Amino acid sequence: MLREPIAEFAGVMILIIFGVGVDCQVVLSTNKGVASSQQGSYLSISFGWGVGTAMGVWVGAGISGGHINPAVTLALATWRGFPWKKVPGYIFAQVMGGLVGAALVYANYFHALDIYEGGRGVRTLGTASLFSTYALPYMTHVSCFFSEFLATAVLMILVLATTDGGNSPPPNGLLPLVLFILVFGLGASLGMQTAYAMNPARDLGPRLLTSMVGYGKAVYTFRNQYWLWCPILAPIMGAQIGTMFYDAFLYNGEENKFNRP
Amino acid sequence: MLREPIAEFAGVMILIIFGVGVDCQVVLSTNKGVASSQQGSYLSISFGWGVGTAMGVWVGAGISGGHINPAVTLALATWRGFPWKKVPGYIFAQVMGGLVGAALVYANYFHALDIYEGGRGVRTLGTASLFSTYALPYMTHVSCFFSEFLATAVLMILVLATTDGGNSPPPNGLLPLVLFILVFGLGASLGMQTAYAMNPARDLGPRLLTSMVGYGKAVYTFRNQYWLWCPILAPIMGAQIGTMFYDAFLYNGEENKFNRP
Amino acid sequence: MLREPIAEFAGVMILIIFGVGVDCQVVLSTNKGVASSQQGSYLSISFGWGVGTAMGVWVGAGISGGHINPAVTLALATWRGFPWKKVPGYIFAQVMGGLVGAALVYANYFHALDIYEGGRGVRTLGTASLFSTYALPYMTHVSCFFSEFLATAVLMILVLATTDGGNSPPPNGLLPLVLFILVFGLGASLGMQTAYAMNPARDLGPRLLTSMVGYGKAVYTFRNQYWLWCPILAPIMGAQIGTMFYDAFLYNGEENKFNRP
Amino acid sequence: MLREPIAEFAGVMILIIFGVGVDCQVVLSTNKGVASSQQGSYLSISFGWGVGTAMGVWVGAGISGGHINPAVTLALATWRGFPWKKVPGYIFAQVMGGLVGAALVYANYFHALDIYEGGRGVRTLGTASLFSTYALPYMTHVSCFFSEFLATAVLMILVLATTDGGNSPPPNGLLPLVLFILVFGLGASLGMQTAYAMNPARDLGPRLLTSMVGYGKAVYTFRNQYWLWCPILAPIMGAQIGTMFYDAFLYNGEENKFNRP
Repeated sequence: MLREPIAEFAGVMILIIFGVGVDCQVVLSTNKGVASSQQGSYLSISFGWGVGTAMGVWVGAGISGGHINPAVTLALATWRGFPWKKVPGYIFAQVMGGLVGAALVYANYFHALDIYEGGRGVRTLGTASLFSTYALPYMTHVSCFFSEFLATAVLMILVLATTDGGNSPPPNGLLPLVLFILVFGLGASLGMQTAYAMNPARDLGPRLLTSMVGYGKAVYTFRNQYWLWCPILAPIMGAQIGTMFYDAFLYNGEENKFNRP
Repeated sequence: MLREPIAEFAGVMILIIFGVGVDCQVVLSTNKGVASSQQGSYLSISFGWGVGTAMGVWVGAGISGGHINPAVTLALATWRGFPWKKVPGYIFAQVMGGLVGAALVYANYFHALDIYEGGRGVRTLGTASLFSTYALPYMTHVSCFFSEFLATAVLMILVLATTDGGNSPPPNGLLPLVLFILVFGLGASLGMQTAYAMNPARDLGPRLLTSMVGYGKAVYTFRNQYWLWCPILAPIMGAQIGTMFYDAFLYNGEENKFNRP
Repeated sequence: MLREPIAEFAGVMILIIFGVGVDCQVVLSTNKGVASSQQGSYLSISFGWGVGTAMGVWVGAGISGGHINPAVTLALATWRGFPWKKVPGYIFAQVMGGLVGAALVYANYFHALDIYEGGRGVRTLGTASLFSTYALPYMTHVSCFFSEFLATAVLMILVLATTDGGNSPPPNGLLPLVLFILVFGLGASLGMQTAYAMNPARDLGPRLLTSMVGYGKAVYTFRNQYWLWCPILAPIMGAQIGTMFYDAFLYNGEENKFNRP
Repeated sequence: MLREPIAEFAGVMILIIFGVGVDCQVVLSTNKGVASSQQGSYLSISFGWGVGTAMGVWVGAGISGGHINPAVTLALATWRGFPWKKVPGYIFAQVMGGLVGAALVYANYFHALDIYEGGRGVRTLGTASLFSTYALPYMTHVSCFFSEFLATAVLMILVLATTDGGNSPPPNGLLPLVLFILVFGLGASLGMQTAYAMNPARDLGPRLLTSMVGYGKAVYTFRNQYWLWCPILAPIMGAQIGTMFYDAFLYNGEENKFNRP
């Protein structure tokens, strides 16, 4: 069924339009000529990714389950019987959704990026970081990995808890409201140091876009293939361990709504 | 039935009271004599339009469907069988609601506008932009159109998804909660450059008001009839394309709650 | 039945603890010795009153209907058959709830008020305005009245819409969530100029407290009995006209949930 | 059944990850090298504890009832028949959850704490206050106790109201949404002076952690055993009196959802 990967594609595209969109808004509103009444803040960023997650799930949850995150898809395949044969299609669609979403935001803020960078077509990591995640300078490799791992484990535990009919889930159709609050909170509490990717498609899709539109190889060579071991491997590991924790200690084995489609 | 257009009138009036109200609050709180504890921010603006949309739909969704947006009405008429004969009445009511809502806010902030403009009855585009949308100076015509088009397409896709019984909609009566989050997020992520009209009535109604109360023809002559091609045509196009996207790729044809009344 | 007025008492007490509490937090966090990470903002104030309204209704909506506002009680008695014999008890309980809630917040911020005022027991209108409402200096009498009238009319229209089974109300038990968003939005959009009383008990209760604890007669003599004609009469009128508007144009006469208890 | 204390452990752990996480984010984002677009604010702190409470309850409410607070557990045992034999296990699990949650956040912000303190391994009360609560200097002992007592009493009254089938509770599975709004509001209105512990496990768990990782005895000797009489005894008393208030005046004795598990 092609509708499932399309729903995942649309979900990540929507996630990125809101999330990368708000990253750009907050930083590019410091450009000259933008009124002070239009300055964003870190709260905007946390909210933006929260809204994006909620809307990304709402757009297609009834069709594909609304994973919109390869780490979630892989964890559900490993531990909850999500069919492995669907996994490649889901992940490909998720990454493409990230790429297309980032392209739309890039087009939307094209002139503002020029102004911020100081010239037509000048592109540096200073604005690449609006699209994909880059750690703060003081962070060690271990700290980077741990931060993404921890945030994604918490995300996964809560996703499983709030879709578990044997626990205390919200009414049907309101899971995205929980995710809005959850991802907002993860950004506000754990999002500062590695920009809380928590989702390989959220990071890789926009990173592919940046490498295509003039940011060059720097987006991959930053800190010894940071793009691979931090925003991809750490979330995948975090979702696995989060699922193991929930299933070992809290899950009672009733059928899981989240996994249904 | 006259109750339907009245509900649309009331819906846009409420939307504008909150949205234009918060625009005024944020900018006019910079007036001398207003305490720093009363300064608004860009987050206020995003929230204000989100609240306005939610309340505008709640006020009459059970009566008229709560379109409160000509672009939505036209898209539902084109693709979902909303009766064309109702369209003119809906759109007229929506624009009038925008005009009356703006008049109420104008009356509420009358003295503060005088203070901000520096004299009794002085009115410039500096405060006209609190009522209707004007693009940032660096934006090209194409960028303006694209920005409004993109935001409205996302809006429409999400409206269709969250009212689609074959997807994962929220419980009855909670669609406005989704719209609160959605429009808040659109403002925070895509609202900076063209002030996210996304709704011809939201823009035209207040613009008519400004032309009547002393802002003069400048509100129409700004950037070659900006008022027509940007906040009116781009949202209409965006809603059409958004509906085509949703219906082509995600819709399974079940009856749509949103379209019911 | 004594439980009904007690529920109204508790509701307004809770409303005031949150609302007046956040007023105090925002202004008194500017005291020396409070860290910058603890500074509040106008958004805090809008949110605080929103939370207070939601919690004030949740605490007793199933018992008394959760009016927590004499203007609402009077409008429901006038237009919706709420028994007039219950009205005096409701209003007395509401005002007492406001008085007690304000006393608890006053006790909580006692030392911070001393510091802000510059001496033990010094009390001026500068901090009286944390408890009751006072208009900005530039506002005329007509503007003050209009601002409170408009905000309360909008409040009442939305309260009636979201409790109207013939419209599109939220699920049982979620009305306070709507009120959270609604009152937050009213504060953000219309709350700057007269501090959006919208509720005679919210204003009179705390004003009585201030007159008792050392603020003196100034709280009543401010602007020709402002306390009476602005935060008491304007909300009562606004709620009446708001109800007339809703009932004339949008109500279809089905039984109203809000009025049930 | 071991799943119940584990759910309480997980609940407090999640609460602390969000709450202490956001405390750290707000203060440690003032470190050199962190962009202004990543500065947190007091609103972040209020939101973070609200999200933490919601998620801490969602993670295990269907298993243990989601107390995640010894003051709540004790109040329910005293007044609502929660089995006393379960109380020690619940409280031990809650405190351990606080300790482990704080350890995870400490690991996450390890390098940022070094930078803030000005050297590797330097640890003072300046950052200990990111983990546990310390009152502002001007507060007297009585004021500290009163502030925690009041906030917890309000918390308990609302918890009882919104889980009372005879009142107007939200739909099943949405109590955490109420708690999100409630705890956010308590932070915004009453949280400034004593950092609104309102929960002995929220305070003692992280305090134990700080005493283990280099903050030394100062975390206990501060203000004559502040750790015991303020964030432990005051919330316990507040929850007791809050329950007495609710049960005496508002409760009609129907079975309580919250108490069910």
